[in-house]
Amino acid sequence: MLHFDSDYMAGAHPAIIERLAATNLEMTPGYGTDSYTENACALLSDATGNHLSSIYLLIGGTQTNSTVIGALLRGPEAVIAPDTGHIFVHEAGAIEATGHKVLTIPSDKGKITAAQIEQYMKDFNADDTWEHMAIPAMVYISFPTEFGTLYSLRELEAIADTCRRFSLKLYLDGARLAYGLASEWCDVTIKDLGRLCDAFYVGGTKAGTLFGEAVVIKHPDYAPHFFTHIKRSGALLAKGRLLGLQFETMFASGFKLFLECGRTGVERALALRAAFEAKGFQPAIDSPTNQQFFTLPNAVIDKIAKSATFEYWGPRGKESSTVRFVTSWATKEEDIASLAKVIPIA
Amino acid sequence: MLHFDSDYMAGAHPAIIERLAATNLEMTPGYGTDSYTENACALLSDATGNHLSSIYLLIGGTQTNSTVIGALLRGPEAVIAPDTGHIFVHEAGAIEATGHKVLTIPSDKGKITAAQIEQYMKDFNADDTWEHMAIPAMVYISFPTEFGTLYSLRELEAIADTCRRFSLKLYLDGARLAYGLASEWCDVTIKDLGRLCDAFYVGGTKAGTLFGEAVVIKHPDYAPHFFTHIKRSGALLAKGRLLGLQFETMFASGFKLFLECGRTGVERALALRAAFEAKGFQPAIDSPTNQQFFTLPNAVIDKIAKSATFEYWGPRGKESSTVRFVTSWATKEEDIASLAKVIPIA
Amino acid sequence: MLHFDSDYMAGAHPAIIERLAATNLEMTPGYGTDSYTENACALLSDATGNHLSSIYLLIGGTQTNSTVIGALLRGPEAVIAPDTGHIFVHEAGAIEATGHKVLTIPSDKGKITAAQIEQYMKDFNADDTWEHMAIPAMVYISFPTEFGTLYSLRELEAIADTCRRFSLKLYLDGARLAYGLASEWCDVTIKDLGRLCDAFYVGGTKAGTLFGEAVVIKHPDYAPHFFTHIKRSGALLAKGRLLGLQFETMFASGFKLFLECGRTGVERALALRAAFEAKGFQPAIDSPTNQQFFTLPNAVIDKIAKSATFEYWGPRGKESSTVRFVTSWATKEEDIASLAKVIPIA
Amino acid sequence: MLHFDSDYMAGAHPAIIERLAATNLEMTPGYGTDSYTENACALLSDATGNHLSSIYLLIGGTQTNSTVIGALLRGPEAVIAPDTGHIFVHEAGAIEATGHKVLTIPSDKGKITAAQIEQYMKDFNADDTWEHMAIPAMVYISFPTEFGTLYSLRELEAIADTCRRFSLKLYLDGARLAYGLASEWCDVTIKDLGRLCDAFYVGGTKAGTLFGEAVVIKHPDYAPHFFTHIKRSGALLAKGRLLGLQFETMFASGFKLFLECGRTGVERALALRAAFEAKGFQPAIDSPTNQQFFTLPNAVIDKIAKSATFEYWGPRGKESSTVRFVTSWATKEEDIASLAKVIPIA
Repeated sequence: MLHFDSDYMAGAHPAIIERLAATNLEMTPGYGTDSYTENACALLSDATGNHLSSIYLLIGGTQTNSTVIGALLRGPEAVIAPDTGHIFVHEAGAIEATGHKVLTIPSDKGKITAAQIEQYMKDFNADDTWEHMAIPAMVYISFPTEFGTLYSLRELEAIADTCRRFSLKLYLDGARLAYGLASEWCDVTIKDLGRLCDAFYVGGTKAGTLFGEAVVIKHPDYAPHFFTHIKRSGALLAKGRLLGLQFETMFASGFKLFLECGRTGVERALALRAAFEAKGFQPAIDSPTNQQFFTLPNAVIDKIAKSATFEYWGPRGKESSTVRFVTSWATKEEDIASLAKVIPIA
Repeated sequence: MLHFDSDYMAGAHPAIIERLAATNLEMTPGYGTDSYTENACALLSDATGNHLSSIYLLIGGTQTNSTVIGALLRGPEAVIAPDTGHIFVHEAGAIEATGHKVLTIPSDKGKITAAQIEQYMKDFNADDTWEHMAIPAMVYISFPTEFGTLYSLRELEAIADTCRRFSLKLYLDGARLAYGLASEWCDVTIKDLGRLCDAFYVGGTKAGTLFGEAVVIKHPDYAPHFFTHIKRSGALLAKGRLLGLQFETMFASGFKLFLECGRTGVERALALRAAFEAKGFQPAIDSPTNQQFFTLPNAVIDKIAKSATFEYWGPRGKESSTVRFVTSWATKEEDIASLAKVIPIA
Repeated sequence: MLHFDSDYMAGAHPAIIERLAATNLEMTPGYGTDSYTENACALLSDATGNHLSSIYLLIGGTQTNSTVIGALLRGPEAVIAPDTGHIFVHEAGAIEATGHKVLTIPSDKGKITAAQIEQYMKDFNADDTWEHMAIPAMVYISFPTEFGTLYSLRELEAIADTCRRFSLKLYLDGARLAYGLASEWCDVTIKDLGRLCDAFYVGGTKAGTLFGEAVVIKHPDYAPHFFTHIKRSGALLAKGRLLGLQFETMFASGFKLFLECGRTGVERALALRAAFEAKGFQPAIDSPTNQQFFTLPNAVIDKIAKSATFEYWGPRGKESSTVRFVTSWATKEEDIASLAKVIPIA
Repeated sequence: MLHFDSDYMAGAHPAIIERLAATNLEMTPGYGTDSYTENACALLSDATGNHLSSIYLLIGGTQTNSTVIGALLRGPEAVIAPDTGHIFVHEAGAIEATGHKVLTIPSDKGKITAAQIEQYMKDFNADDTWEHMAIPAMVYISFPTEFGTLYSLRELEAIADTCRRFSLKLYLDGARLAYGLASEWCDVTIKDLGRLCDAFYVGGTKAGTLFGEAVVIKHPDYAPHFFTHIKRSGALLAKGRLLGLQFETMFASGFKLFLECGRTGVERALALRAAFEAKGFQPAIDSPTNQQFFTLPNAVIDKIAKSATFEYWGPRGKESSTVRFVTSWATKEEDIASLAKVIPIA
């Protein structure tokens, strides 16, 4: 059986497993005070070009979102997200559990625009009852989005500029950042993120580590006592060096392994897309990254499902349905070839 | 200047002020353990026809909503509300501050239907990722709604039935209940609410008390330690007898004063509507209660604004805008007559 | 029956009831945007001598504590309180409900010292594991304390100085402030509180209003969006002018009525104490304010209980127990005389 | 340098690293829906003898404590802990962050007794103001405690019985359970814990896994929607099979590896203790598990510190200080021998 359900089905890139094994019996102090973590953070700090930033290694994506958003917002402040954003749809109310409302802007294939944010804030400010409403204080976007799409540098700069003008912090969810940065269509760099975002994270879990998300906060004052806040959020790993070692491996030599993992995932995704196109099926969304969506006749879906696993995107329709295929650093060329063989002709 | 901004601009019905003054120097125990409170609760308990219910007197509407919803929901459970619901729009994230997400269903003039709730739950249950989403466990509706509209008994029964079938608690916000029950178009009684709702409140603040909202919870098990929860929510009034005395006055003799206040407000609202219609302006919403909405040319609005205060409903438009006029128990016949004089002909 | 259970058993000072009645049918805008509130806040602002402070009128004590503390603390920050402090013992976990830990210092008759705070912080800072502990960021004290005792100006200045040195905000619970300021033994003024405290409140409920606590926050930056935070906390009164009018009445003419209420309560308390002393019973605590504590033989307690209500302070002992008698602005001279008659000779 | 700072300084038992490497490129579904997790849970379920229990694999200890306690408590309910309990001292307010107060009972070397709990509850119930206080609804204990001590089966049964009589849920923190169960002085089994505790967890992190804590909840009704609650708490591992595989390895063949790891740690600890005793230093606490405490002259401490790392237990004293040495499954016989050589004679 072939697997395209998600980008976290395999373990870690073998290079990581090797280093875990090699260093296993070393004794290091806990909670991220080890030298692996120090190195990993320094590598990321260098990459962002901002040596004042605070860098912390957390374990998972939802955890990172609620820990960071909970730290940066105060009392009645709220975060604006695309209505398809992970924090709004698929985090079980984790942000609200920290006491903060998630406000939404309708997204186009996962993306929102600077103009939408500006309009939202103008409407809010023009509302006589604004003081009775949760105060928008942050914008959350995903890169790539939940639909595999990317913001261009120009779009991101416009969003960042709008955020600054309306005193909104900009937070970018980089759970799949590897597959964004590695895409040919991407003109954004980590340095850009460091410059434009008040906070963002570099996802490890989907990119080839066993787990781990590396958070960058632009300035320590944004989240006072953030280490203790991580502890309080249940997000502090006792054997923190496991995170350090994995990200050090990923980030060494100019993010070599991280980008390589990203490139593999994207290449496989484009090959997968080509395989569908070759059979006459156009993608439902023009995604340049490792998630590919197709609206297919149910009969086609059922046929492919005999050989491969993947997810429905929304409910199964009467005649046709939209499905998602996800590749990753662990997808092999022959997986795509095998899949291509079981896709019937349109 | 005439005032139609809201239904809480005056103090209390004179009968209440009189009793407050007459009993002012009495010494009673605190926190609602006095006999006034006991009487008020017994009167409401009788009216609901459910002597197992728990009745508590709180101070304000947002406070009541967050205290009750926070008590009835657990952990990842969420409340479904119309997207125009007060808890979603105008409570500054008070529900989210208790850790719970507010999910929304698009409303039609403030109302949602049993069919919409059913569809929402079917979609939720059919979603493969439902366990990663906040769990819908309650439905919130307002009666009358934020647009002055009412649910019929049949609609309410259908909603209650759907809630039961999907294990959703039904909670009804009765901030303006007086103006609902007193409307000719209303076929719902307090006994119906006691039968159909898992929790609801009878609003005092807008109906003629200085403040106060009387909460009915169908069964004590729904909210264990609710008294202590009220205290913890900062919602416990030290001189609780002030609430008891006001509601006792309102509820005595079969809710006589409560319904009288409601009737006055509705009569004035209908007279106000007639005054607009007489000048050729049709209401924007067909509201049978104490809130009336009109979309008027800005010139008309500006002219009326010289003699009366009222609220814009949404932003001011380029040529015309929607405005809201609210009456109450304290609106006098001559106020409407005076207003009628300043409404220009369409 | 005589009543000495608490200082919130009667309604309000008659001057307040009179003004409530006289202004009852006025129409004012809601939520504290009325001119009564504006006046009350200006009077208090003047008294503190700090025109940059933010002043807000809330409803009750527990509500005020959790709303203010919740606004001033962030994430993992905690508040240090005497172990007898109201927020630690008798607020049903309201502070914890906002997500913040209450740390404690052993109190001496309700009071803690600057030296204790300094030692606490030195120990905390010297603890290698401090980053894994809630971060002390505020000190809470009551004035008068829960035992009726007072801090001297010198003690308060030392505490404020220690707080400043350790970056702790100083918050003072003035639920019974009237009975403190009016005591002969008090050398602290409202201006001192405005100078020394980062936040404090002037209690109305126990001092002669129906309800209400007036909060002073030294600088608006300490609690951004505080109005919205009040709303979110369920602490915003719709008919806010009720609070404004009561405090305006209290604070007019240099806090005339407020201090008069305080003085009456203290005079009655000292007369009550003298009545006990005359019968040979010494107070358990040397309290210069309106709460008086006595450890009495159970037989004496039982005898007095036939004519008066009061509270046990802790559990009833085998032979003797400690009880508390509370006076207020509403206690009459003849109440003390009547009580004196039923106190047996020791 | 020798390391005795904590029991989480090394990676994982080599058997775990081997299996991680061997299974690394397998593709499994996420979030604990894989067969490794299923097996691990079944093994633990068998061991507890309660097939109705809910078993979930979480990542870390503080996370587990706040997730479980937050799920089992409602609104104003609080948890009673020893005043030395990890949740009270060293979790940065994580429990309070879920809205619940931690109440304390003075511990004797980490332990509390059934009699203390009974007295606490009797005092609470006898307090006239109990409804204004957080409601004790759970007891938290650690096994072994933070001081290395153990409850006997008889003590545990008495505590469980007292909890049942006062409607308190009993929750046991088993972060170091391996070192408890493997101690000769322990007469408690996992089956006993399954019988006596309403919830407990079996610690992996300190016992030889890379990370992971296995939670047992006696009945699913205690924590409705617990999976979603885990997600909301940021405690759900995407690659859940990593937890499953580690605990399956630990629990296979009757907890063979788990107990072996425990035994190694305890043996080394007793050897370490003997080494100190041989030099004339008695332990400060009679601990039968993997933590050993000594009060030593500072000169002795400084000498040992040249060759070994360990922690101060409390602040360094003027002449002598208390220090803690922790062993684990990863401590080697020669580590103890090397340490013995650098301990001076008393």
